[in-house]
Amino acid sequence: MKKDKPLILVTNDDGISAPGIRALIAVMAEIGTVVVVAPDSPQSATGHSITINDTLYINKISKDNDVIAEYSCSGTPVDCVKLAVNEVIKRKPDLCVSGVNHGSNSSINVIYSGTMSAAVEAGIEGIPAIGFSLLDYDWNADFEPIKSFIRSITLEVLEKGLPESVVLNVNFPKLGEKEIKGIKICRQAKALWMEKFDKRKTPQGRDYYWLTGEFVNQDHGEDTDEWALANGYISVVPVQFDLTAHHAIQKLNTWNWNE
Amino acid sequence: MKKDKPLILVTNDDGISAPGIRALIAVMAEIGTVVVVAPDSPQSATGHSITINDTLYINKISKDNDVIAEYSCSGTPVDCVKLAVNEVIKRKPDLCVSGVNHGSNSSINVIYSGTMSAAVEAGIEGIPAIGFSLLDYDWNADFEPIKSFIRSITLEVLEKGLPESVVLNVNFPKLGEKEIKGIKICRQAKALWMEKFDKRKTPQGRDYYWLTGEFVNQDHGEDTDEWALANGYISVVPVQFDLTAHHAIQKLNTWNWNE
Repeated sequence: MKKDKPLILVTNDDGISAPGIRALIAVMAEIGTVVVVAPDSPQSATGHSITINDTLYINKISKDNDVIAEYSCSGTPVDCVKLAVNEVIKRKPDLCVSGVNHGSNSSINVIYSGTMSAAVEAGIEGIPAIGFSLLDYDWNADFEPIKSFIRSITLEVLEKGLPESVVLNVNFPKLGEKEIKGIKICRQAKALWMEKFDKRKTPQGRDYYWLTGEFVNQDHGEDTDEWALANGYISVVPVQFDLTAHHAIQKLNTWNWNE
Repeated sequence: MKKDKPLILVTNDDGISAPGIRALIAVMAEIGTVVVVAPDSPQSATGHSITINDTLYINKISKDNDVIAEYSCSGTPVDCVKLAVNEVIKRKPDLCVSGVNHGSNSSINVIYSGTMSAAVEAGIEGIPAIGFSLLDYDWNADFEPIKSFIRSITLEVLEKGLPESVVLNVNFPKLGEKEIKGIKICRQAKALWMEKFDKRKTPQGRDYYWLTGEFVNQDHGEDTDEWALANGYISVVPVQFDLTAHHAIQKLNTWNWNE
């Protein structure tokens, strides 16, 4: 690790006032110089959405003599990362951490997650990045048991650096600190959401829907994040943003594309 | 291909009235039974966003005796796919096609693209899926030159089926039909957007920003989608939604995670 304190950008998708990001800020403040740029309202499930058809606002929340500079932003988590790098700190931070998300971003959830999309955006821009999530959707979730693990994972990443074009997706089981068995490097389990739409009528009689669903894990491999979390481990999945299915290229080349 | 006409779900992210989706519907109507469920307004760059904190509406646009059933939806492209499968057609279609997007979804754009996220969502649900995009952002872009290619790619996918957990990202160069050299199976080029925020003041004097940027291709491989498109070919990238960086697992396992 550098002798100088690392500059750490903190963001999330639950919004700047969420207890999860407050816990993350507290841990990062012990490690480095912290700048927070996070959404001014909840942005869960915004995926890798960016704001191109609307204006973006940034508000400085912290006072000028506060140790930690905090900014709320009207955009998505990905917008927050872009604005932070370009307009707020005006350089690449040494690390970007996102979360702690209230609820799981394991398995296929990585693709819907604003928390992880912020980390992926940082990764695209060449910034080492980690997304943290706790398997507890409650606004009053207890983040104390995971703070020491967040600290040790962050220090490890700052010391070793991450492989090129890879960010980390870290999920914590909802357990006491002593009950957590350790950290496992995993692959993303194959799973999906089986949707159920809750159909209702407006007071004026028009049909509308709420999206709900059930998470279905189709993958019982013991090297998956779902297995690790179900068995008391913290899951760490290295995530990439080259979406090419390289294994499929050879097969597709046997098709009659140009006849 | 099945003897019965295939059931084809058509969606996009530019909205149901965009010329690109009208061109795609016209081609699909010659191949199968078409159901359209598409956003009622432009949803570009929404990525894999879903609507969980708001209500969703569907409006039937077509008349009861129209050959093609069309529905507009208040949600994102991913919401459209979920609603189509669960509430509109109430079964998995034989194919989902998304687009034709007005503008490129090659390279890293795949990750921001609502068009491609709709195709990926279909893929997650086990539906063969293709996203089509034309390298022309103009609302009045000419889709005629690419119709025969869309038709032949679609027929090939219906006949052969796609590899498991793979969807296709198809991009067309802005060229006449005769100038297009053919189809190339490619990998996603390594590239990124260098953001520039256009900072302005509201009439009341408050700062705000527009997100703009410049696309920077860092990858000069001749097996990439950017190379194919720049050299007059249609690029076809197989896209996966297992985001695990499998190559990084072994290295991360050498770290001191549990000390």
